[in-house]
Amino acid sequence: MLESGKEEAAPILVDQKLVPGQSSRFQKQIEFILEVDKLKHVLRQTILMDQSRRENSAEHSWHIALLIPVLAEYAKETDIDMFQVMKILVIHDLVEIDAGDTYCYDDKGREDQTQREAIAADRIFGLLPADQATEFRALWDEFEKRESPESRFANALDRVQPFLHNYFTNGQTWQANKINSRQVHERMRPVKDGAPDLWDYVNNLIENAVKKGILAE
Amino acid sequence: MLESGKEEAAPILVDQKLVPGQSSRFQKQIEFILEVDKLKHVLRQTILMDQSRRENSAEHSWHIALLIPVLAEYAKETDIDMFQVMKILVIHDLVEIDAGDTYCYDDKGREDQTQREAIAADRIFGLLPADQATEFRALWDEFEKRESPESRFANALDRVQPFLHNYFTNGQTWQANKINSRQVHERMRPVKDGAPDLWDYVNNLIENAVKKGILAE
Repeated sequence: MLESGKEEAAPILVDQKLVPGQSSRFQKQIEFILEVDKLKHVLRQTILMDQSRRENSAEHSWHIALLIPVLAEYAKETDIDMFQVMKILVIHDLVEIDAGDTYCYDDKGREDQTQREAIAADRIFGLLPADQATEFRALWDEFEKRESPESRFANALDRVQPFLHNYFTNGQTWQANKINSRQVHERMRPVKDGAPDLWDYVNNLIENAVKKGILAE
Repeated sequence: MLESGKEEAAPILVDQKLVPGQSSRFQKQIEFILEVDKLKHVLRQTILMDQSRRENSAEHSWHIALLIPVLAEYAKETDIDMFQVMKILVIHDLVEIDAGDTYCYDDKGREDQTQREAIAADRIFGLLPADQATEFRALWDEFEKRESPESRFANALDRVQPFLHNYFTNGQTWQANKINSRQVHERMRPVKDGAPDLWDYVNNLIENAVKKGILAE
């Protein structure tokens, strides 16, 4: 689902004759790489720190991947496989290429989100060779289920980054969408499960946002 | 160096009183996270696959991080620490926040690139607590030196992605900058050192690009 809502372009086809060994495996991998470029067109509600424009999901995915080495020490559980966390985060939003970014406080949009995203996952991961399609789908399922320590930390980072953007851009997105502090608090709960120190910080900022009048109580 | 060439905003300051335990370590980490958002404003020469606009360095960094699990099997050396590769790639372009993206065929711009980027690295990584500043700086140095197997694979991916963009957007960037096939071939050499199969593919595409008339011989 592109930013303009316009019809999506068909995937670019890779000429198998030009691929080393004319390998269909290699061909599929390149076609996947070309296709995922579309994530750069998926706009989120989050605005950039300088308030110049909305963020896209590729930028968001990069930012939270970078948060891993910065904030690893705050993960709730020790012995976490941080490479697994990173793989989860770089692929976790790919389904949005077809399903779009569903705003986290959009209750109506969220009703059929699961179904839309599952169909998207089938198509997008299905571009890869079968073993990698299975691996990537498992990473995405792991993220969604929030059962492993890795996915809990991944989810915490995925929630914290847009929250920081909202807070440090004076709550513009909260106000535009008439969001209150209870809703933000509820939305941030996975931070508690994945990174309790970050959760404490989030709570301090929510309280201060209400005090400053940039977030409704 | 922002897309418009305008003066950069001062870093956002984080209120230490709101940080858990009033920890200056935590404060620095959050200030770093807010500052690196600026990478989303650094525009590259590369254009997106749908040719709608130029790519920024945050999007590029995400794309090549995703290339790791897709193309890991083509790394020249085995027993590579792929988490290290990923950390290298998510931080490798941060210096561009101050130093800008230097176009790879811009010989004049490249003359003082090393110095500009070293100053940028000092400032940007220096926002972090000392131990992390040292760790991040070492990751960037490792990328630049291309001595470790990890950095060689990282460099291969960093070169392949924009090459694919150029090829699959009909060589627009090559033509606009009057680049010929010898220059592209030379620029792509690190792919040979990091991922020989990808190097074979690059060579096939260069040859075909010349044949199709989208790249000067």
